[in-house]
Amino acid sequence: MTKPLRVGLAGLGNVGAGVVKLLDTNRALVERRANRGIEVVAVSARDRHRDRGVDTTRFEWVDDATQLCHRDDVDVVVELIGGADGPALTLARATFDCGKSLVTANKAMLAHHGLELAERAESAGSALKYEAAVAGGIPVIKGLREGAAANELAQVYGILNGTCNYILTSMEQDGSPFAEVLAEAQRLGYAEADPSFDIDGIDAAHKLAILASLSFGARPDFGAVATQGIREVDIADIQHAATLGFRIKLVGLARQEAGGLFQRVHPCLVPLGHPLAHVDGSLNAVVAEGNFVGRLFFQGRGAGEGPTASAVVADLIDVARGEFGPAFAMPASKLGALPAAPQGDHVGRYYLRLTVADRPGVLAELTAALRDESVSIESLIQRGTAANGGVYVVMVTHEGPERAVRAALGRMSASDSVIGQPMMMHILDF
Amino acid sequence: MTKPLRVGLAGLGNVGAGVVKLLDTNRALVERRANRGIEVVAVSARDRHRDRGVDTTRFEWVDDATQLCHRDDVDVVVELIGGADGPALTLARATFDCGKSLVTANKAMLAHHGLELAERAESAGSALKYEAAVAGGIPVIKGLREGAAANELAQVYGILNGTCNYILTSMEQDGSPFAEVLAEAQRLGYAEADPSFDIDGIDAAHKLAILASLSFGARPDFGAVATQGIREVDIADIQHAATLGFRIKLVGLARQEAGGLFQRVHPCLVPLGHPLAHVDGSLNAVVAEGNFVGRLFFQGRGAGEGPTASAVVADLIDVARGEFGPAFAMPASKLGALPAAPQGDHVGRYYLRLTVADRPGVLAELTAALRDESVSIESLIQRGTAANGGVYVVMVTHEGPERAVRAALGRMSASDSVIGQPMMMHILDF
Repeated sequence: MTKPLRVGLAGLGNVGAGVVKLLDTNRALVERRANRGIEVVAVSARDRHRDRGVDTTRFEWVDDATQLCHRDDVDVVVELIGGADGPALTLARATFDCGKSLVTANKAMLAHHGLELAERAESAGSALKYEAAVAGGIPVIKGLREGAAANELAQVYGILNGTCNYILTSMEQDGSPFAEVLAEAQRLGYAEADPSFDIDGIDAAHKLAILASLSFGARPDFGAVATQGIREVDIADIQHAATLGFRIKLVGLARQEAGGLFQRVHPCLVPLGHPLAHVDGSLNAVVAEGNFVGRLFFQGRGAGEGPTASAVVADLIDVARGEFGPAFAMPASKLGALPAAPQGDHVGRYYLRLTVADRPGVLAELTAALRDESVSIESLIQRGTAANGGVYVVMVTHEGPERAVRAALGRMSASDSVIGQPMMMHILDF
Repeated sequence: MTKPLRVGLAGLGNVGAGVVKLLDTNRALVERRANRGIEVVAVSARDRHRDRGVDTTRFEWVDDATQLCHRDDVDVVVELIGGADGPALTLARATFDCGKSLVTANKAMLAHHGLELAERAESAGSALKYEAAVAGGIPVIKGLREGAAANELAQVYGILNGTCNYILTSMEQDGSPFAEVLAEAQRLGYAEADPSFDIDGIDAAHKLAILASLSFGARPDFGAVATQGIREVDIADIQHAATLGFRIKLVGLARQEAGGLFQRVHPCLVPLGHPLAHVDGSLNAVVAEGNFVGRLFFQGRGAGEGPTASAVVADLIDVARGEFGPAFAMPASKLGALPAAPQGDHVGRYYLRLTVADRPGVLAELTAALRDESVSIESLIQRGTAANGGVYVVMVTHEGPERAVRAALGRMSASDSVIGQPMMMHILDF
C-alpha cells in the first residue's frame, strides 16, 4: 500500500472538526476505499484552545494558516477558513505554488477566483477539489463534472441554501410571517445573527456561479448572477401560490439562452408536480437537464458538520487515488467568457401580487397596464384583505419576456390604487 | 492534447447506437471535457446490415465481438452484448488479458462475475467501468463509489426497474389490473415479449447485487438476493395502500443487519412522505444513507438509448482522463464474502391482505393466529368485495421479525375462511 496521504487542515470550525471526527470514526473504511491512509498531520485555526468536541492537540499546530502548505509533512491542504479573499486565497495560491493539491469548501473564493485557481492547479499538476462548496454532502460537483460529462446541458438549477429553504418551509407550515420565522431560525442556530448572506441570496449565488461554470464550460462569473433573496416573500404569496398549485422556493438557475448565459437566484413558484417542490426544510437539491441523459435530480443535506465533512473527505479520497480531474470539468484554457444573457429577455410565466384599494375601476386600470405592455394574463384572483387594508390581486401571466412584465408592473405601481410594493416571481416551468 | 481514445464497440442495439449518436452529436464537448477525442474505430454486432438510425459503415467491422480487444487500434472496449456469460464474459476477460479497459452496461455479468472481473482489471492495471449497468443515466455508481466514499452506509435502496415502476404507476393511475397494464406496456414497447426478467425482479436483483457490493465492501453475490416481483400485486393492494398513506413500489434494498448483509428485491409500501413514493413512471431512483452524509437521493431516467449512452460515455471520459478507480469502491482483495442475513430476521412493519369468507368469527380466527405468533397489529381494515366473492381484510403490523409474520400468515392461510393466496409486503420505514 502507498504511504498515507498527509493533510494540513486550515480552519477548525464545525466542518473542520467534522473532518477530524469522520477520519477518526471511519478510519479503516476510508483507508480501504482510498487504498492508503488519510491522516491529518497539521492544523491551523484562530483559537488554539477552543473545545471542538474532538482532540486536536495530537496534530502539529501552525499559527499562520497560510504556512501550512510549506510543511514537508503535508501532501494536501484542506482550506476551511472561508471568505473570498484574505488568508483563504493566500493559502490556496501558496498551495499550488508548492505543487500540492487543495480541497476546499469555499464557495465565495471559487465564485470570485475560480478561473485563476483552476489555472494555477493545472500549471502545478495539482488537484483543485470543492465538492463541499455546493450543496454540502450531495455529490453534485462530481455528478456534473463526471457523471453528466457527456451531455450538453440545457439548464442547471436547484435549491442551494438550506437556511432560506428552512424559512420558506416553516412559513408555509406554520403560517408565520418571514420576520418571525427568521427570528426563530436565529434562535435555533439555523440562521446567522447577520442573516443577509443567506437570505439575500448571496450564498446561493456563489454556488450557482460554480454550477454554471461546471455545466456550461464558462468561467465562474459571480458578477453576472442576478440575485434576489426571500425578504419580500409574504406569507400571503405562499398561500396564493398554494391555491394556484405551486410552492415558493429560492431557486438558483443557470441556462443557456439566445443572448448568452442566464444566471439568477430568485424566489420562484415551483409546480407541485416538480421534484423541487418537495424539497423541504434545510435540504438542498440540484437538477441538471442534459441532451442525452434527460433530467437528473440530486437531493440531500446541503450543510452541517457531517454532510460537509463527507464531501471534503470524498475529495481527499479522490486525491489519494490520484484522480485529479479538471476543476471545472474541462481544462481552464477551454473555459469561455460567456456573455451574460440580458435578464429582461428571459421568457417565462410570472406571478404578480399587488395590494390595491378596494374600489371600482382598479382592475380596469391594472389590465390596461398589462395590455399596454402586451402582457396577457392566464389567471387572476382577487381576494383576501392585506394588513395594509387593501385587497390582494394575484395574476399569473402567459409566457412572455420578463422585460414586458416588469414594464407593466412599473405602470401599475405608478397608480394611486396600488398600495405598497408589488411582488413579481418567476414560475419554474421546466 | 493527448491522442484520441479509440473505442471498440461490441453490440449495436439501442444503447450501442445511442453511444455512436452521442459521440457524433456532442463530439466537441466530449473532447473538451476529456481533453482528448473519443472515437469509435471498430464495431461488432449480430447483424451488419440492420438500419440503426446512424451510419456505422464508417467503422471497422469485426465479425467476432470477442476479437475486438485484440485490435491494435482499440484502446478501450465497450461491451453492450449483454448476458451474464457467453461472448460478453469472453470479451471482458480477453479485454483485461490484453491490458485494456472495459466499459460495460452488463448488470447480469457483473452480478455474477463482478469479483473475478474486478480482480482481472486490477491485475491488468485497467479500468472496469459500469455506470450504465445500474439506474441508466443516473450517476449512482459514481455517487456511491466516489461521492459517498467517506461514509459507512447503513443501507442502500431504490427503484431499479423502470418497467415495473411504469406498470405499478399505471395500475395506480388507471385503476387497471396488472395483466391489462402489462399487455399495454408490451404493446408500447415498455415491456419485453417475455417480461419475466423485469417483472419477476431479476433485473432489479442484478442491479442490487452491484449496489450492495459497492456500498458495503462485499463481493457481488447475486445468489444472496431474495427476489419477489410484482405479479402478485393486486389493484386492491394499491388502493388499500393509498388509503393507509402509502404507494407500492418495487424496491431493491440492501442493508447491514446483525446477521449479515440483507439483500432483497420486493414490492414495498412506501410512505407518501418519502421521496421514493414520488418516483413515477419509468423513472429510477436510489437512496443511500451514510453515517456522516445522511440520506442521499438520486433520481433520473433508468433506461433508454439516451440516458444509457450518457452513462457509457461518462465512463469513457473517465477512462480518457486516466481515472480508473477501484471497480467496487475498494481493491478487490479487500471485498469481503459477507454472510447473508437470514431473511426471516428482518425487522419491520408489514402489510397483510387476505380475502376471507363473509361470515362471523373470521376475524377472531385471524387475530388468534397473530396472537399465537406474537404479532401485534397496528391497524386493520375490513372492506370491499374481492372478485372471488370474499371480503378484503387488510392489516398493518407493528414492527417485528418477518419470521413471525410469515408464520402467522401460514396459520391464517390454513383456515377454511381464507380464500386464495394472501399478500404480504414490507413497509419501508426509513
